Amino acid sequence: MELRSQTRTLTLAQTFAIARDSRDVDHVVGLELRHDGLVGHGEASPYDRYSETPESAREWLERAAPLIGDDPFDLEAIEARLDRELPPQAAARAALEAALHDLVGKRCGQPTWKLLGLTSRTPATSFTLGIDSVEGTIDRARSAVEAGFRLLKVKVGGGEDLARLEAIRTVTDLPVRVDANEGWTVADARALLPELRRLRVELIEQPFHADDIDSFLNLRELRGGIPIVVDEGCHRLPDVARIARYADGLNLKLAKTGGIREALRMIHAARALGLRVMVGCMIESSLGIAAAAQIASLCDYVDLDGHLLITGDPFSGLGFADGAVVLSDAPGLGVAPR
Amino acid sequence: MELRSQTRTLTLAQTFAIARDSRDVDHVVGLELRHDGLVGHGEASPYDRYSETPESAREWLERAAPLIGDDPFDLEAIEARLDRELPPQAAARAALEAALHDLVGKRCGQPTWKLLGLTSRTPATSFTLGIDSVEGTIDRARSAVEAGFRLLKVKVGGGEDLARLEAIRTVTDLPVRVDANEGWTVADARALLPELRRLRVELIEQPFHADDIDSFLNLRELRGGIPIVVDEGCHRLPDVARIARYADGLNLKLAKTGGIREALRMIHAARALGLRVMVGCMIESSLGIAAAAQIASLCDYVDLDGHLLITGDPFSGLGFADGAVVLSDAPGLGVAPR
Repeated sequence: MELRSQTRTLTLAQTFAIARDSRDVDHVVGLELRHDGLVGHGEASPYDRYSETPESAREWLERAAPLIGDDPFDLEAIEARLDRELPPQAAARAALEAALHDLVGKRCGQPTWKLLGLTSRTPATSFTLGIDSVEGTIDRARSAVEAGFRLLKVKVGGGEDLARLEAIRTVTDLPVRVDANEGWTVADARALLPELRRLRVELIEQPFHADDIDSFLNLRELRGGIPIVVDEGCHRLPDVARIARYADGLNLKLAKTGGIREALRMIHAARALGLRVMVGCMIESSLGIAAAAQIASLCDYVDLDGHLLITGDPFSGLGFADGAVVLSDAPGLGVAPR
Repeated sequence: MELRSQTRTLTLAQTFAIARDSRDVDHVVGLELRHDGLVGHGEASPYDRYSETPESAREWLERAAPLIGDDPFDLEAIEARLDRELPPQAAARAALEAALHDLVGKRCGQPTWKLLGLTSRTPATSFTLGIDSVEGTIDRARSAVEAGFRLLKVKVGGGEDLARLEAIRTVTDLPVRVDANEGWTVADARALLPELRRLRVELIEQPFHADDIDSFLNLRELRGGIPIVVDEGCHRLPDVARIARYADGLNLKLAKTGGIREALRMIHAARALGLRVMVGCMIESSLGIAAAAQIASLCDYVDLDGHLLITGDPFSGLGFADGAVVLSDAPGLGVAPR
């Protein structure tokens, strides 16, 4: 198999701020894997929170190339070789695994979701409102409602959290999820929780630093029925049993799991442990989102709006209906370069 | 899809006795599922320990027929409908799910193991020695060694357990696994364990009744490094987390899980919880064994010898090399009626 990668700049439609940073553009790595007359596509969204960059992802892909072999179907063995021979680079691994799934689907003439026994219909996705002023948040919420979204995810940790959530409730009754991206303390959570319940917040994502398990354990008594979902603290299968001891659910992103297969493993382990499952994303094009959307029908919560936050999406093929991402019937991941 | 089933009698090459019963023949249900010019095959091995009979399996299949729909790829939704609308009949469900996998593979022109990202190579299977006299056990062990098996599984719970294991060790140094099929008490286990360690027994399967968790918990301190594997106490995904609290591994049989997909879910959950995984079987033809063998490469222990215990196997297509079942490269399950 022949492997080519390139760094692509994705431009955000609006400045995107979360508890720890703010950005107007983001960089992903596009991957093309050629095999026997077919091209498989994959996309890496490396993230500095996990010490990954487009450069480290591309370097990893170069090192991975000679380990892939010549059979895109041989996924379990390929992944075992990569995990054994190379240091972890989850986003790059996910790009490679997505491209292999794309090739397998194209070889079979079937969409990936169908080969997984799943469906093209996915639960409604949330639309993410980055941290902004109260007025900016009102504008963003109004636009999301007008665009047909059925769920909002509000990034918090910026000081005006409560005022922004109150403002959103003046605009819409849509379900609201809150994501603190590790930005809260237990004192923050304690002060906010009664208000979040009053404002009918549906869930809270990653309130504390991934390593601060004590704060999560403190929150278990305070949360009063609002599920706590772990994102930054959830990467691979061995994390799942640990999370079951301190939270209620996990957010799977392929850029963390390293691909569809590990995400599936984690979904099944989560179900065995009574955990809820969210599938999330980074700032990604339709290519990256298409890979995650293949398994979205198995999840309780879908947060696959990365491609809807950017302008000039380099890939097309995903639909949007009734507030949900709709997968294509085309073979493989079902997206193609524009 | 058009569904036809028939009861088949499988004749055992030798009387097969375990702790709770003895038999010379067994009955399975063969299923043919016709769709768009292709035929998918599946086999149910209903077991009275779980209140299932060939009649109850065939009746369930009749009731399932109108719920299948017309797309064999739509596995997740089909299984959800079956689980919602019908009472549980795991063996029949497994037959139907195997036939659907067979159809999907044939439609794609690919073996099922390949569509699952796996390999046709499986770990060596154990060969099962039913309960017999000491002399009979020696003969059986010698025949198994001569036939090229690399592992023995010895059914115990018959009174001469220790003498039979000693006798086997006069014939061979092959790894020996022991299966009590719920036949022991804690006192039995306590008396036997030092001897089993001396005789280098590799694992102990289902020593106590499935519901007798207290005895399993007692055994945790006595077992001295010999893994305890749960069979009769392990059916579907919700059992896995419970088993992790009282044993070291689980034995997946499709006749209990209701099919390949649930077995895969359970493998991933087991891995997340640090459990070892065995894939086992009932008395089955090559058709039933082929379905289970598709996922054997993911397992630590393989016990897929059901088709090797019978005469006049109605299906062919499975190979045997280096003590292991070898899957076919033919599309679907890779077996065909003789």
